[in-house]
Amino acid sequence: MNAKIETSRLEKILKKIEGVADKRASMAVLSMVLIEYKPTESYLHLLSTDLEIGYKGKIFAEVEGEETSFCVPARKFYEIVKNFPEDEIYLIKDENRLVIKDAQERIVYNLAITDSEEFPSLPEFIEENAIEIPGKVLAELISNTIFSTSKEESHFVLGGIYFEPIKEEGILRAVASDGHRLVKLDREVIGIENVNFNEGFIVGRKAAKQIEDIAEEELIVKLGYINNYVVIWTSNSVFFARTIEGTYPDYRSVIPSHYENVLKVDRKLLMDALKRVSLIIPEKFKPVTFDLKPDEIILSSQEVELGKAQIKLSAIYEGKPLTVNYNADYILDALEVMNSEEVEIKIGEERTPALITGRRDEGFLYLVMPMIL
Amino acid sequence: MNAKIETSRLEKILKKIEGVADKRASMAVLSMVLIEYKPTESYLHLLSTDLEIGYKGKIFAEVEGEETSFCVPARKFYEIVKNFPEDEIYLIKDENRLVIKDAQERIVYNLAITDSEEFPSLPEFIEENAIEIPGKVLAELISNTIFSTSKEESHFVLGGIYFEPIKEEGILRAVASDGHRLVKLDREVIGIENVNFNEGFIVGRKAAKQIEDIAEEELIVKLGYINNYVVIWTSNSVFFARTIEGTYPDYRSVIPSHYENVLKVDRKLLMDALKRVSLIIPEKFKPVTFDLKPDEIILSSQEVELGKAQIKLSAIYEGKPLTVNYNADYILDALEVMNSEEVEIKIGEERTPALITGRRDEGFLYLVMPMIL
Repeated sequence: MNAKIETSRLEKILKKIEGVADKRASMAVLSMVLIEYKPTESYLHLLSTDLEIGYKGKIFAEVEGEETSFCVPARKFYEIVKNFPEDEIYLIKDENRLVIKDAQERIVYNLAITDSEEFPSLPEFIEENAIEIPGKVLAELISNTIFSTSKEESHFVLGGIYFEPIKEEGILRAVASDGHRLVKLDREVIGIENVNFNEGFIVGRKAAKQIEDIAEEELIVKLGYINNYVVIWTSNSVFFARTIEGTYPDYRSVIPSHYENVLKVDRKLLMDALKRVSLIIPEKFKPVTFDLKPDEIILSSQEVELGKAQIKLSAIYEGKPLTVNYNADYILDALEVMNSEEVEIKIGEERTPALITGRRDEGFLYLVMPMIL
Repeated sequence: MNAKIETSRLEKILKKIEGVADKRASMAVLSMVLIEYKPTESYLHLLSTDLEIGYKGKIFAEVEGEETSFCVPARKFYEIVKNFPEDEIYLIKDENRLVIKDAQERIVYNLAITDSEEFPSLPEFIEENAIEIPGKVLAELISNTIFSTSKEESHFVLGGIYFEPIKEEGILRAVASDGHRLVKLDREVIGIENVNFNEGFIVGRKAAKQIEDIAEEELIVKLGYINNYVVIWTSNSVFFARTIEGTYPDYRSVIPSHYENVLKVDRKLLMDALKRVSLIIPEKFKPVTFDLKPDEIILSSQEVELGKAQIKLSAIYEGKPLTVNYNADYILDALEVMNSEEVEIKIGEERTPALITGRRDEGFLYLVMPMIL
């Protein structure tokens, strides 16, 4: 095989490949990319998988030679291509080497290849009944919720983002929660009512990150949920990931329907205040006390060995005087992905979660439990 | 004590203080800053030390109250000031607290204080016979040599930069070596012949970094070597560090006087080539082979499991055909601090070190040992 390829295109596809391949794999072949060429095509196919997730991309090439398939280390191949100075790159496969070089042979790499038969066979998926969704919308559903997923391995279903089609409202919903806070984001998706799945599915963090990376570069992607796999098609690639098995908790029942106390505050002002109070708290979990009165709002740290911080906040509070503690980081996480100048924080009493929304954050809802201190 | 201070000035001095204070100190007071006020002065004095190095700075303040001295945690104080949004900051010391606040008391921190009697007493130094040296020159003597010091704790004297006055040439010299490579940098310093020390002294890495930070912000600093301390004065601070005891190796004897083979090459081109070859080398130490012939220069990696890289270099080589191996990182380290467009690499045979210089790098000399492979 003798191929000439546009370096920047190869770099782009290898970036995805490298993200999927498993660097710490016990099977060496899972850290590799499988390269396939059939003489009837003017493409090379590139594949990688860690057995849970997989990616197949094709790339246009001026290519000749016999049918072939072989594996090379994904990360090294990506690093070589990423740093390659010429616009065009040549890939020449001989008996047991992949030669990577420029036209003048000033730069020549020889990569040892591994037999393609060691590469696991990947499932095939049919695009039928997949929905088209703007890449930006899918990327946003992930980027604005993934921070609330649980990082604890034992949390299974909470370790992923729950995607749910709400067909009667024409909405695709993403929900994420680690038990202490919960985020829900709704986005209108045309044609969601025709999709071939009714129930939701849970996408793990690594897979969700990959989907976000793919989607944010595409105008439109196709999304399907098939045989416990979430599948994303673009014009030149398909990505799939086994979804997390299990039933997602009934998140609807934890969203209170009624609140009596409402705090309206400038989002950036509140972020600043939370960061300043956090400064003095040595713990990983950062309790901040909100002292809420209609005429005065004060954020403060608990008295610790080091001392204490206290900040007066310009804000509007309607409700009865309350003192309530929240983890500053949990509130900051939400404020950071929001867009509204002013946010509305509905505050419950005792063990009711606070509910954060904003006028310019349509479809976005965030719940955070108070801390008992 | 009740003081009003310009926030940006306090931030600047606390940055130095925080760099000197020992975060992992077994004695808590060594992670603190000592603050002193005498009613006859319009200054606060700030001091920190890790017992090996110390810093005393003074800062102009509108201040009133009784004489006092106390300690607060250096890092937290710095973080609070660094993030303080107002141009002026108020420090009020009461019985057992330092209150840090703005004029309107919107932001109020209370820091617990520690008795100043726990703070170690610091040595005093007299400026007499110190030399004036442009801050930029001193900073450069450090930044362009420190990378060659040894990171191994057992290397003692090689763990620091050796400063040597060459009075007959009007030069201050900095030398650093980890045994595999050596850098020497000479800078003219007016008045060096009158300085009160004849022998050189060795400044450890942490102290050298601090001196660089101080010097690069000052037009002129004063430098002294007194009772085994290196001392730096600025208009409002004094920094001192115990030098490393021991005799610095005779670096002069390892610099060859004669070479027969010379490679002249564009500095950036060589950096690119070394980085590209390094890509394929999995080890921490990166042997790169230079194949040198008058009509062709090739850089290549050894054949490793992964494969091999080979790059043809546009360069001028005068000498006999040679094949020699160097650690790519060692050569890159030098090229990165150099300024010349073209560098000259004089290449020895067998176990002679290569010598790197550049026309626009006056006073700079770098030696690197070949690898035996």
